[in-house]
Amino acid sequence: MASWLQIPKNSPFSLANIPFGIISAQSASRSHLGVFSQPTLNAFAALGRPVHRQVREYLQNILKADTSYPQVLKENASLQKSVLLPLSQVTNHVPMQIGDYTDFYAGLNHAYNVGVLFRGPENALQPNYKHLPVAYHGRASSVVPSGTGLHRPNGQILTNPTANPKVPAFSPCKKLDIELELAAFISTPNDLGTPVPIDEAEDHIFGLVLMNDWSARDIQAWEYVPLGPFNAKNFGTTITPWVVLIDALEPFRTEGLEPGNRESLLPYLREKRAANAYEIPLDVEITNQGGKPTQISRSNARNLLYSFSQMVAHHTITGCNLNTGDLLGSGTISGTEPHTEGSLLEQTNGKNPLKLADGSERLFLEDGDTVVLRGMAGTEGNYVGFGDCVGTILPAHPLP
Amino acid sequence: MASWLQIPKNSPFSLANIPFGIISAQSASRSHLGVFSQPTLNAFAALGRPVHRQVREYLQNILKADTSYPQVLKENASLQKSVLLPLSQVTNHVPMQIGDYTDFYAGLNHAYNVGVLFRGPENALQPNYKHLPVAYHGRASSVVPSGTGLHRPNGQILTNPTANPKVPAFSPCKKLDIELELAAFISTPNDLGTPVPIDEAEDHIFGLVLMNDWSARDIQAWEYVPLGPFNAKNFGTTITPWVVLIDALEPFRTEGLEPGNRESLLPYLREKRAANAYEIPLDVEITNQGGKPTQISRSNARNLLYSFSQMVAHHTITGCNLNTGDLLGSGTISGTEPHTEGSLLEQTNGKNPLKLADGSERLFLEDGDTVVLRGMAGTEGNYVGFGDCVGTILPAHPLP
Repeated sequence: MASWLQIPKNSPFSLANIPFGIISAQSASRSHLGVFSQPTLNAFAALGRPVHRQVREYLQNILKADTSYPQVLKENASLQKSVLLPLSQVTNHVPMQIGDYTDFYAGLNHAYNVGVLFRGPENALQPNYKHLPVAYHGRASSVVPSGTGLHRPNGQILTNPTANPKVPAFSPCKKLDIELELAAFISTPNDLGTPVPIDEAEDHIFGLVLMNDWSARDIQAWEYVPLGPFNAKNFGTTITPWVVLIDALEPFRTEGLEPGNRESLLPYLREKRAANAYEIPLDVEITNQGGKPTQISRSNARNLLYSFSQMVAHHTITGCNLNTGDLLGSGTISGTEPHTEGSLLEQTNGKNPLKLADGSERLFLEDGDTVVLRGMAGTEGNYVGFGDCVGTILPAHPLP
Repeated sequence: MASWLQIPKNSPFSLANIPFGIISAQSASRSHLGVFSQPTLNAFAALGRPVHRQVREYLQNILKADTSYPQVLKENASLQKSVLLPLSQVTNHVPMQIGDYTDFYAGLNHAYNVGVLFRGPENALQPNYKHLPVAYHGRASSVVPSGTGLHRPNGQILTNPTANPKVPAFSPCKKLDIELELAAFISTPNDLGTPVPIDEAEDHIFGLVLMNDWSARDIQAWEYVPLGPFNAKNFGTTITPWVVLIDALEPFRTEGLEPGNRESLLPYLREKRAANAYEIPLDVEITNQGGKPTQISRSNARNLLYSFSQMVAHHTITGCNLNTGDLLGSGTISGTEPHTEGSLLEQTNGKNPLKLADGSERLFLEDGDTVVLRGMAGTEGNYVGFGDCVGTILPAHPLP
């Protein structure tokens, strides 16, 4: 779909995409449509999927070369001047007011890889793993937009894990890691006490973003029994600021991992559609301070055992209510081959360093490292992507 | 402190208290003070502790028998008519817009009792327990005010836990339990990346409520590895709708459990004040459908190893930001003697039924059971309490 606008051919935001986000600018024009003049996209999202679809199709139409409505924007220079803002003049924000953020663990290969490290290949996956999408509640307040710097967290770590009794030290995290994830924003809510049926679940999803679920592995190892990760994850989670509508991703549907596993699921998780994953290549790049970017991983959104629809159905089967703006993370998306892992823990096991372009080595992240996640589906000129999910590690605060 | 108002002597809401809440009523008067004419208390809470204190003292003054300002309300019949609403005409609401809800595990005796059930007395407490306040992120959307009925959740449970391989069944929860907790609402926020020092932490706490953290033990047992409880807790959490200001509880300060443990804590958790717990008797009562109330437990808020200040300091030590309206649960508050436990799991171990007043027995909750938590400190006429935290179990939805 060609546009009369100058959209670079490798842009993730082609007409095939039309993502939505929240920006501010010194001279931003004010829309008279209520839902688009608010500090979040919640009101727009709550209008539901048919409206999102209609708005996206309308925007595609007025932007395409052979637009049916040239007078609206293509041939309206004064309106172009006020509504087409140079990216250099705008600031992106977290696009939704997030009520609750839930992080799933649907990346089968990641769960397996981490399980092997902790329990060996025989017992890598817990007995529940292939029966339900494992999840935990995450921290919503510290979800930040791409580009936000995050301080290395301080916390309790075991410097001598074999000591008896175990005595923690207070320290900056020494095993700071990334997690490559996709995440879904909820559009229309469900009432408390009313589960969402699996085949209606997708209509509750507004769209997807890329997410880096930063993780402090040493803090996590000490704190996580018996209730799961807490401080190891609550210092920051970075997302791309443009919500890619679920309809924009429809052409990239494909079968997820182990489609045969669906047959053994309980009925509330059994999705009619077999193609419940997405074919979206995903990259991870690290740039050290003053260095050049090094691509350290290339994975694909296919690498999930459960779909976002299954996550919604499972989350609500107890009657739990999802609200507009709630965020559901997929879990870390890793492949099965070397350099397809979605975390450093899996790539290095804290022992086998990876090499950056300038020859320096990494087991985990160092201060000044910038991590970029990217994901883009489709073909040149019609890419549907998320843009860059960027975060830089700032030094820890001085110890108190 | 005597009032010219007719306040019953056993009321938890004496002049010594002055709690704050959100109500609606058909003919409620409109305040001209912006923060009091909003659907939540967030704006008032964000004004900070000195303002909360001033407002509480002013309300105590105009309500007390020897008020310095009789003309304001005591002798102003028309204003009384519009601002003193009969409870029968008002509906209570969740008093704050909750951003994130975090549930701690600071009830030492509960953690020990549950640990004994799962791992025996030798290893009852995990090695981290006496070094940090263990916590997990909870579900904010399903926090409901006292009086809200909750459907028994459906979910995956293991009906035959010794089978190999383990295969879950879809079923209404058969081990539905309560957890007796206190919870703190956050008043003033901290910025992302800026920890709250332990001795400033209390000034970030607006006040406390009673909380019932309903728990589906059988769903929890199957789902909780490796990331902690999720669906077992997300179907509902009941709180009292009146926020008791942290200043109202000041007279009831006392030493918590094992004050000597403080010396071995890392400095960021070492509170100057030794009396960092509260002496507040807490009750649990069950009424079966058509039956009479049975008090099944009597505990005390003293039974915590960590204070809310320590929870705030630990939560933010990574740089995690707390927002106005965030809710921090204490964890289940159990004593050490029989019938002081804060959960049914501890009282019955799923094996030894407790008897209700009409002779019927309970291992866990049945449909139609109403649970009431109560907590009240002080002496007759000057009680500072929370009111009733009430929830009734409604039947599960039919299985899909």
